[in-house]
Amino acid sequence: MVDILHRVGVSTPAPDQVYNALTTVDGLAGWWTEDTKGSGEVGGVLAFRFPVGGFDMEVVELRPNERVRWRVVDGPEEWVGTTVDWELRQDGDYTIILFKHQGWREPVEFMHHCSTKWGSFLMSLKALLETGEGAPAPHDVRISDWH
Amino acid sequence: MVDILHRVGVSTPAPDQVYNALTTVDGLAGWWTEDTKGSGEVGGVLAFRFPVGGFDMEVVELRPNERVRWRVVDGPEEWVGTTVDWELRQDGDYTIILFKHQGWREPVEFMHHCSTKWGSFLMSLKALLETGEGAPAPHDVRISDWH
Repeated sequence: MVDILHRVGVSTPAPDQVYNALTTVDGLAGWWTEDTKGSGEVGGVLAFRFPVGGFDMEVVELRPNERVRWRVVDGPEEWVGTTVDWELRQDGDYTIILFKHQGWREPVEFMHHCSTKWGSFLMSLKALLETGEGAPAPHDVRISDWH
Repeated sequence: MVDILHRVGVSTPAPDQVYNALTTVDGLAGWWTEDTKGSGEVGGVLAFRFPVGGFDMEVVELRPNERVRWRVVDGPEEWVGTTVDWELRQDGDYTIILFKHQGWREPVEFMHHCSTKWGSFLMSLKALLETGEGAPAPHDVRISDWH
């Protein structure tokens, strides 16, 4: 069992804007993919679509300004059943995000790609909150032939 | 045991320039840290220094244009004894880099940080080769309060 882990810090006085960007369709569309639909409530499903494919995430846990947890219910075979966990806390002038995409069965090449891509999207989230402009798909940073 | 994994593709006709950027002091100084010294030969030690701290890597394996492997011999406690593995292969117009930083004892918060930071430095390596300009320390992209 192998996990994708990341940590970024967003320069902002409190975690509420980060929490908002992880729990509302408008917020998510500002840094991950413009084609985001669905419900960010517990038990709801968020549908994220990209030029090629996408993911459906069930929202399994929400603790305002502290934690968001999704379970992947549809998408690439390697993703289905995995969980995506966001922990937030305030450290001085930064909201610290600890990110975990857990439950990968094998460290396949696609997992390497997703790890780098998640890092890049976390930087998009940080940019959205610090500058007002993220880089959600289809305007996301190209990291390879797999996009 | 948990690993940091990444995958990027560099738009270049052959892996030799990527290999060069991983095995020469000048190449490494162009994307990771300007303060790079030492020997990139097998058995040699490369010393990477940053505004705060640094790492000494013993070069344990070199296969031209295919593989580079380092072992961390000095640096932060969490890094010492871990290995950094670079696999290269050509896929059409891209040199694909599979990156693994293996042997972490625990998925500590610092490991989350290093995962995101490695991804960011891989994008610096890609930029160096595609545009002639990377973002090595001290000009590296700031991802958080930990820099």
